[in-house]
Amino acid sequence: ESKQYISKRNIMISPETVCEFIGTASLVFTIQSASSELAPIAIGFVLVALVFAGGPVSGAHYNPAVSLAAFMRGAMTLSDLGSYWISQVVGGATGAILGGIVSGSYSTVASGDEVTPFQAQLAEVCLTFVLCYTVLNVATVPKVENNHYYGLSIGLVVLSGAISVGPISGGAFNPAVALGLSIASRFEGLYYALCVSVSNLIGGAVSAVCFKIVSKNILSEPETVVLGESAPLNT
Amino acid sequence: ESKQYISKRNIMISPETVCEFIGTASLVFTIQSASSELAPIAIGFVLVALVFAGGPVSGAHYNPAVSLAAFMRGAMTLSDLGSYWISQVVGGATGAILGGIVSGSYSTVASGDEVTPFQAQLAEVCLTFVLCYTVLNVATVPKVENNHYYGLSIGLVVLSGAISVGPISGGAFNPAVALGLSIASRFEGLYYALCVSVSNLIGGAVSAVCFKIVSKNILSEPETVVLGESAPLNT
Amino acid sequence: ESKQYISKRNIMISPETVCEFIGTASLVFTIQSASSELAPIAIGFVLVALVFAGGPVSGAHYNPAVSLAAFMRGAMTLSDLGSYWISQVVGGATGAILGGIVSGSYSTVASGDEVTPFQAQLAEVCLTFVLCYTVLNVATVPKVENNHYYGLSIGLVVLSGAISVGPISGGAFNPAVALGLSIASRFEGLYYALCVSVSNLIGGAVSAVCFKIVSKNILSEPETVVLGESAPLNT
Amino acid sequence: ESKQYISKRNIMISPETVCEFIGTASLVFTIQSASSELAPIAIGFVLVALVFAGGPVSGAHYNPAVSLAAFMRGAMTLSDLGSYWISQVVGGATGAILGGIVSGSYSTVASGDEVTPFQAQLAEVCLTFVLCYTVLNVATVPKVENNHYYGLSIGLVVLSGAISVGPISGGAFNPAVALGLSIASRFEGLYYALCVSVSNLIGGAVSAVCFKIVSKNILSEPETVVLGESAPLNT
Repeated sequence: ESKQYISKRNIMISPETVCEFIGTASLVFTIQSASSELAPIAIGFVLVALVFAGGPVSGAHYNPAVSLAAFMRGAMTLSDLGSYWISQVVGGATGAILGGIVSGSYSTVASGDEVTPFQAQLAEVCLTFVLCYTVLNVATVPKVENNHYYGLSIGLVVLSGAISVGPISGGAFNPAVALGLSIASRFEGLYYALCVSVSNLIGGAVSAVCFKIVSKNILSEPETVVLGESAPLNT
Repeated sequence: ESKQYISKRNIMISPETVCEFIGTASLVFTIQSASSELAPIAIGFVLVALVFAGGPVSGAHYNPAVSLAAFMRGAMTLSDLGSYWISQVVGGATGAILGGIVSGSYSTVASGDEVTPFQAQLAEVCLTFVLCYTVLNVATVPKVENNHYYGLSIGLVVLSGAISVGPISGGAFNPAVALGLSIASRFEGLYYALCVSVSNLIGGAVSAVCFKIVSKNILSEPETVVLGESAPLNT
Repeated sequence: ESKQYISKRNIMISPETVCEFIGTASLVFTIQSASSELAPIAIGFVLVALVFAGGPVSGAHYNPAVSLAAFMRGAMTLSDLGSYWISQVVGGATGAILGGIVSGSYSTVASGDEVTPFQAQLAEVCLTFVLCYTVLNVATVPKVENNHYYGLSIGLVVLSGAISVGPISGGAFNPAVALGLSIASRFEGLYYALCVSVSNLIGGAVSAVCFKIVSKNILSEPETVVLGESAPLNT
Repeated sequence: ESKQYISKRNIMISPETVCEFIGTASLVFTIQSASSELAPIAIGFVLVALVFAGGPVSGAHYNPAVSLAAFMRGAMTLSDLGSYWISQVVGGATGAILGGIVSGSYSTVASGDEVTPFQAQLAEVCLTFVLCYTVLNVATVPKVENNHYYGLSIGLVVLSGAISVGPISGGAFNPAVALGLSIASRFEGLYYALCVSVSNLIGGAVSAVCFKIVSKNILSEPETVVLGESAPLNT
C-alpha cells in the first residue's frame, strides 16, 4: 500500500509532468513579461523552442485544450490527462508569478474594447481549433512521425493568433495561460479566464472531430479506400 | 445508380476537400481578423502551420492558383482541380465570414492609393508566380520528397509578399482569398477580386512553365544530360 | 562547329542559370517593392523560400559573392562561376525593373547619413562574410548533406543583416542586388554599387579561408586528428 | 616538451575554438550594430544561422553559460570548457569592437529604468535557464540526434527573450555578450556585466539539473521504467 502511494506520487512528479510544468511556466513567464509590440513574436517563438525541447519527453502540450484533443484522438490516457492538466495550470501560475516579479506588473487575459463576449469567445474557439487541429495533424500522424517541423507549426499558430485575434479576445488559446495569469494576479479576471478555458476546450474538442474526418485515409493508408461505402462527415 | 450518386457526393466531402476547406477557412479567417502592423506575419505564419498540417492529406494548396500550377505540372487530375477550387472558395468565404463576425469588420482586397490597375495586377502576377514556383519546386520534386521545409517555404512567400506588394495590390496571391473576402462583404469589390483571381491564375500558369525548364534535369536525374541536343527554353 | 555553338548557348540557358536568374530576380523584386518597416523580414524570408526552391537545381546562390566563395571552396568550376555571375546580375536588373514598375519608384543601395565610406564598406564585408560562411557550412559539408535547414539559415542571415547594418551600408551583401538596382535606375549610384560589390566579394573570399580552418576536421572525419602535427591557422 | 607546447597551442586555435570565436563575434557584432526596433529579430535569427553553421564543428555554444550546462550534462570536458570560454569572450569582444566601428556607437548591457537589480538578475537567470534547457534537450539527447531544428530552437529563445525581458535586464543571457560589449566600450558597465554573467551561469547550472529530471526516461529508453522505485526529484 505504501509502495502504491509512492508510485502515485511519482506519477505526479514524473519526467512528463515536470516537463509540462517547465514548458508551461516558461511560456507564461514570456507572456507576462513581454510588453513591446513584438510580444506575439516572443510568445510564439519561445513556444516553438519549448515544443521542440519537450516533445520527446511529454509531447509538449503545455495546454489543457491540446491535451484534451490528444486524449480524444486516443493519444493519451484519462489519468495522464488529469496529471497533465494539473501540471499545466500550476506551471502557468508559476510562470505568471515569476514573470510578474521580473516585470513588476501582473496582466490578465481580457477582451478588447467594444468586443462582445460572443466575439471574444468565438475568437478563442476558432484559434484554439486551429492550434489543436495543427497539433493533431503534425504530431499524432504515423505517416509524418519524426518530422522536424511539428514544434515550428504549433508555435506559429499561437504567434499568428496572438497578432490576429489577440486584440479581440486577449489571445490565450490555452486555459493554463488564462488561469495562470488570473491566479498570479490574485484571481483578477477569473470569470473571463474560466469562460476562455471553456472556449479553448470546445475548440480542442471540435478539432479532434475534424481531425478524424481529415485523417481518415492517412491513418489507414494500407487499406484500400472504397468510395461510396462510407460518409466521412457522419463518422 | 444510387451508389454512384453517393460516391460522387463522397468525393465532394472527401478528406482532401474537407482539408482544403478547413485550411483555406483558417487562412482567410486570419486575414480577416488581423488588423495590426504585424498582420503579414500572422498570415504567413499560420499558412506555414496549415500547410504542414494538411500537406499529407490534400497537398495543402488552399489556393486555386496553386492547384492550377499543380494540375499543369501533372500532380493532380482535372476533376480534383474542380473539387479543390470549390472547397477553397467555399472555405475562403466561410473563413471571411467567421473572421468578420469575430472582428466586427469586413475587409476586401483592394489596391493602394495612386496605384494603377496595371501595377496592381502585375504585382499579383509576380508574387503568385513566386509562390507557385516555390510550391512546385519544394513539394512536387521526387528528389526532395519528404523534406521538412515545404510548408515553411510556402508560407514565407506569402508573408514576404504581403509586406512587399501588399500595400500595392492588396496582397491576395490567391483567388480564394480575394473571392472569399468579397463574398463575405456581400460582393463588395467583386470586380477587383475577379481581376486579381485571373492574375493569380496567370502567375500560377507561368510558374508551371518555368518549373519545367528549371526542373528539367532534377526530374530526370538518372538520364545523362547531353549538351547541345535540346534547347530548354523551347520545350 | 554549329553544334558546339548551340552547346555553349545551352550552357547559358541551362536549368541552373535559369534558376539563378529567377531566384535573383524574385529576390531583387522584393527588395525594390518592399517599403514598410518590415521590409527586412520580407527580403530575408523570400530568400529562405527561394533557396529551398532552387537549391537542388543550381545551389541557389543568387549572389556573386556566394558563388565566389563556393568556387574557392571547390564546389563549382570557373566557367560555371562566369555564367552564374551573368545570370545573377541580369536577374537582379530584371527584378529591379519589375519591382520598379510595380511600386512606381526605383531605389538604390546607399549608405546612411553620417556613415563614412569605411564604415559602410566594412559593414558589407562583415555581413557578406557571415552570409558566405553560413552558406559554406550548411550547404557544402558532406556531414550535413541533405539537411533541411540550409535555406532557412541563409535567408535569416540576410534578414538579420538588413536590420542590423542595413541602415549603415544599405544592406546589399550581394553584388547582384547592388548592381541590379543601379542598372534599373539608369546607373544611379553605380560607383557605390561597385564599391559594395568589391566589399561583398572580399567578404566571400575571407569566408572561404575561414571555412577551411573551421571545417578542417569535419571534412576529413574518417582520419585521426593528431594534435601537434599541424597548425590549422597556417594552412 | 616542445611538441607538447605546440600541441597545447593547437588546442587553443583548433577548429572548435575558431568556430566559437567566429560565431560569438558574429553574434555580438549584430547586437552592437542593430539599433532598430526589430533588433531582437536580427539577433535571434543570426544566432539560428550561426548555430546551424557551427553545430557540427564545435556544438555552436557561443555562450559560456551554454558551455557550462553542456559540461554539467557530461557533453564536454573541463579543459574544453576553459578554451571555449576564452574563445567566446575574446570573440564577443572582437565582435563588439567591429560592430562599434561599423555603427559608430558602443553599447553595453544595462537594466531598464525603474528595474531593481533583483528583477534584472532574476530575468537573466530565468531566460538563460530556458535557453540552456532548450539546448540540452534539442542538442544532447541521442533520441533526437541529427534533428534539423536545434539551431532554430536555440536562436528563437534568444529572440524571444530579447523582446520579453530585454527591456528589463538588457537581454544578454550570455556572459560573452555582456563582457564583450563591456570590454569594447573600455570596461564601461563592467560590474553589471559581471553580475549578469554570474546570473547566466546560475541559469545554465539550474537547467542542467532540471534536464536530468526531465530526460530521465528518454536517456535510458531501452530500460523498463518501474514506477515507485525512484523519486525523480531526489536524483
